[in-house]
Amino acid sequence: MKISKKIEQAAKEDRVWWSFEYFPPRTAQGLQNLLDRIERMRALGPEFIDITWNAGGRTSELTAELVKTCQKLIGIETCMHLTCTGMPKEKVDIALREAKQAGCRNVLALRGDPPVGKEWEPVENGFRYGVDLVRYIRAQYGDYFDISVAGYPQTQRLPPDEREREMQYLKDKVDAGANFIFTQMFYDVDMFIEWVQAARAAGITVPIVPGIMPIQTWNGFQKATMLAKITVPQAFLDQLEPHKNNDEKVREIGTKLVADLCRRILAADIGIKGLHFYTMNLEKGCRLLLEELNLVPRIEVIKPLPWRQSLTPNRRTENIRPIFWANRTRSYLSRTENWDEYPNGRFGDSRSPAYGELDGYGVWIKQSKEDALRLWDTPTTVEDIRQLFAKFCKGELTALPWSDTAPSSETSVIAPQLAKLNELGFLTINSQPAVDGARSDDRIHGWGPANGYVYQKAYLEFFVSPELLDLLIPHIERDVNITYYVINNRGDLRTNTHSDGPNAVTWGVFPGKEIVQPTIVEAISFMAWKDEAYELGRQWAKVYEPESPTRKLIDGLMDTYYLVNVVHNDYKKPDAIFEPFYKAGAEYAAKYGSALQHPSANGTNDANGHAN
Amino acid sequence: MKISKKIEQAAKEDRVWWSFEYFPPRTAQGLQNLLDRIERMRALGPEFIDITWNAGGRTSELTAELVKTCQKLIGIETCMHLTCTGMPKEKVDIALREAKQAGCRNVLALRGDPPVGKEWEPVENGFRYGVDLVRYIRAQYGDYFDISVAGYPQTQRLPPDEREREMQYLKDKVDAGANFIFTQMFYDVDMFIEWVQAARAAGITVPIVPGIMPIQTWNGFQKATMLAKITVPQAFLDQLEPHKNNDEKVREIGTKLVADLCRRILAADIGIKGLHFYTMNLEKGCRLLLEELNLVPRIEVIKPLPWRQSLTPNRRTENIRPIFWANRTRSYLSRTENWDEYPNGRFGDSRSPAYGELDGYGVWIKQSKEDALRLWDTPTTVEDIRQLFAKFCKGELTALPWSDTAPSSETSVIAPQLAKLNELGFLTINSQPAVDGARSDDRIHGWGPANGYVYQKAYLEFFVSPELLDLLIPHIERDVNITYYVINNRGDLRTNTHSDGPNAVTWGVFPGKEIVQPTIVEAISFMAWKDEAYELGRQWAKVYEPESPTRKLIDGLMDTYYLVNVVHNDYKKPDAIFEPFYKAGAEYAAKYGSALQHPSANGTNDANGHAN
Repeated sequence: MKISKKIEQAAKEDRVWWSFEYFPPRTAQGLQNLLDRIERMRALGPEFIDITWNAGGRTSELTAELVKTCQKLIGIETCMHLTCTGMPKEKVDIALREAKQAGCRNVLALRGDPPVGKEWEPVENGFRYGVDLVRYIRAQYGDYFDISVAGYPQTQRLPPDEREREMQYLKDKVDAGANFIFTQMFYDVDMFIEWVQAARAAGITVPIVPGIMPIQTWNGFQKATMLAKITVPQAFLDQLEPHKNNDEKVREIGTKLVADLCRRILAADIGIKGLHFYTMNLEKGCRLLLEELNLVPRIEVIKPLPWRQSLTPNRRTENIRPIFWANRTRSYLSRTENWDEYPNGRFGDSRSPAYGELDGYGVWIKQSKEDALRLWDTPTTVEDIRQLFAKFCKGELTALPWSDTAPSSETSVIAPQLAKLNELGFLTINSQPAVDGARSDDRIHGWGPANGYVYQKAYLEFFVSPELLDLLIPHIERDVNITYYVINNRGDLRTNTHSDGPNAVTWGVFPGKEIVQPTIVEAISFMAWKDEAYELGRQWAKVYEPESPTRKLIDGLMDTYYLVNVVHNDYKKPDAIFEPFYKAGAEYAAKYGSALQHPSANGTNDANGHAN
Repeated sequence: MKISKKIEQAAKEDRVWWSFEYFPPRTAQGLQNLLDRIERMRALGPEFIDITWNAGGRTSELTAELVKTCQKLIGIETCMHLTCTGMPKEKVDIALREAKQAGCRNVLALRGDPPVGKEWEPVENGFRYGVDLVRYIRAQYGDYFDISVAGYPQTQRLPPDEREREMQYLKDKVDAGANFIFTQMFYDVDMFIEWVQAARAAGITVPIVPGIMPIQTWNGFQKATMLAKITVPQAFLDQLEPHKNNDEKVREIGTKLVADLCRRILAADIGIKGLHFYTMNLEKGCRLLLEELNLVPRIEVIKPLPWRQSLTPNRRTENIRPIFWANRTRSYLSRTENWDEYPNGRFGDSRSPAYGELDGYGVWIKQSKEDALRLWDTPTTVEDIRQLFAKFCKGELTALPWSDTAPSSETSVIAPQLAKLNELGFLTINSQPAVDGARSDDRIHGWGPANGYVYQKAYLEFFVSPELLDLLIPHIERDVNITYYVINNRGDLRTNTHSDGPNAVTWGVFPGKEIVQPTIVEAISFMAWKDEAYELGRQWAKVYEPESPTRKLIDGLMDTYYLVNVVHNDYKKPDAIFEPFYKAGAEYAAKYGSALQHPSANGTNDANGHAN
């Protein structure tokens, strides 16, 4: 969606809005951290985000990549910066083409800064000024992109003739087709207001969005203002400088100062309702500022589906996914990247294109070796593993190799039951509770349009030893409402379902709509997921030295354990899914005693007799 | 499905089954009556039906047409007779091709009777014996059709050499590829059992299905037995003849005699579990016989969907239909006959092919002028019309021009509310109550596989005067859960829905399956239905003389009234849909007084100001 439309909408609703700017980080780990942060900061309610363009080098492709990931994975409207610096036309073409492919409709066209320590000079077959870039984008893409340009309030402090020339440059960019203006940072409100009025007087009518830089540390503040050569009001210096060695104090005072600046902008009669925050890729400053401004995100961000939709064009209508990747969205997106069409309404329609092979991007566990050791220590018995899984369910552990994230608030409804299952030896890696018609605005389970009802069938997915599985199956089969799939690492599949069609495990009923069924369980997808589920265990094992007891332990589990998914189809009986597990667990304890005598714990493969 | 498979299945389940034979009637009214009867007799639980082939003339095409209608509309497995009489190969080819197109998998191949008063003789390029026809069908269609042939138990009374020759003919037909044998009627059980044993002795191993002719009147009984030249046991004559002028007594005694015959067949150790009834297109004889035999239909015939699916190949996967034609299935089938594909899972996918124009077959009201006058008399005021509609809702009237059938048992749940609405001036022509998760085996609302839950949103469709509509709309719009479409006879559409997608109003949740949503409300379909809804009123009006008060009254309503459909999307509040109607009705009474002063009652068109 074009940002200008969002600005229009907010103006119509007479509400204050805000957006966040990020820059591409330098390292892979930095990239991962940034994506996590963007995802988290989504909860702060930005109307959109933008990603700066780095002058030349590998980070420019990184910008395109980040834009794509934000649109696709995080599902947040993203604006791409594009500069003239070091960019011949061909590179501009590539960047625009990729942005379009990613569903991005917003470009900020800039001249850009010169490379550090150099004078700015155009590249061959490139552009000299922002206005040239604006014209080029309009000529090439018509109305496809919203184009924004940069405005410089600081120019208000220039001598009159220079000031007017600068304003004319801005007007030229707008006349060339820019839809709105982002301003450079500033701390002098009066100057900013004067500048806006001057712009209006000069006939610039497009929206102006002030760029706001939170104050986080004294050094950062000093460096930023000097680099941008902007006026700092004496009051800022008077209040901040005495605490320049106390970061926390600087942030506290800075937050109040900048919040005050924001309030004055919004209160001034200059028609400004939006604030663009330069986050510097940090979370805290923006959050404090928004809190200080009482700009809590509008109610709850609307969840159109229980999982986050992609904003890339070919996935925009996708509204069904298998439940297996619920905790590994990025991997699902990657493995289905080449599908010609995505399931809409029914899963069956679009299943034919196979799942992509496991590749480096999708399947790696996210944690570094250090993280892994810190999180999961060095388990040496199956009992240790069970306890790790149980801790994760209780919320005492933030990640497992199979979960990118801590358990959702929804899972916490059944956290005690899940913890118990893990203690009994069912190593759960995915689950959802039964929901029998919660309202669509329910805080925990709700999604979709207002005045609807949402439903879920209880779901459990877990690794389990052959012995425990043998005890479990008869109990499961006694309940006509349970359907299951059992698979091992060789891909031998067992099930009690007769249809090979999908089982809808999440669905919603809404006024005036067809039934929406965004999550399903289905055999082919489960078989594709299984490769990944076992591989994640292998990767966890590789954190430990070859021949070490932990490595052997985990590899042993991956060799022998089955991967099982279970759906309880009667969603009106929320606890019924757990019963067979409690019974099998009790029988297991009676038969084999404590977990330490667990026959599969030493990693020998005795599962052969159980496959099929 | 092939009948031989059904026979196998019944044998496996060790249960008695039965089937009904009909013949094509001579008149259009007779055809209509027969279809109604076949539909009704479906409740008697026949495993399949068959339709005889009439020698030459227009009735032979009628056979193909009947087979098609039974497969498609009534959704009952149908066997087509095919004879050699007057049928050159080309006509056989056409008949088989059409049967295949209709999804029919069963053909009874016969030589057939000669035309009345003539000797049997083959036609040019035709077949001489049943066995030739069997060979031809097998050669042309391989295993596609189940082929049955006729057996003649009466031949058991022939001299030994003739008897053996006849048995050899039968064996030849079986050897040529027949899958099973229907026998001619008989009343001599001992003779029949002997004949079956002789057939087995002759190496005929395929199933034998005895043909049973109920005894309905003395004359009919006499005529049939003489025509077929069959032995009638003296006991039959002794018991029936004394009452030959008392049809009821003959039927009573005949039923007992034939029931006894059936019991003896089933009890004899000859492996027979199926009875094929020659209905003579009559219902009562078969029903009495089945009751006498205690052969009540197996539980309830399973309803895979809330409406009856077609058995024609291209419609077999169809599982969504608009609710508008709920009481006019045949018209819906006719108007969608040329669709390339039918909605499966989602309605949206297959909507592009337009609805067919109204044509004679689909849109005529079913009632003859006499029926119409008998049912609906000669209303002269709007109040009369309201009362007619109210009576229909209360079950005191079996049909309206808009309903092929009396209200369903499901509608009776809300019969009092509907009656009240009609008395208030909302002339309802379709409706369903809200259902919040009834079990799929619920006697009234259930459908679909076991252990599921079914749901419905409350639905109302009605004609209404512009004045009453104006009072209704504000009340409807006060409930965020109500969506509506209003249309007039010129096609001006008003709605409060924002999406133009379908609204699922019936859906089911089943173990291991995607959500099934067989009934929807949707704008394009409603616009197609509207033509028909108004036309049905016009046709009703035409029952009365031009310029007569009744004709003017009904035409006036069709000129001025709006057609409205309303969905209450909160299916957890079953009565909420009626509230706005009660309120608007009360306001109307306060404003306009009694219905006789109804401003639209005189047929003047004052609706112009209300269309959009």
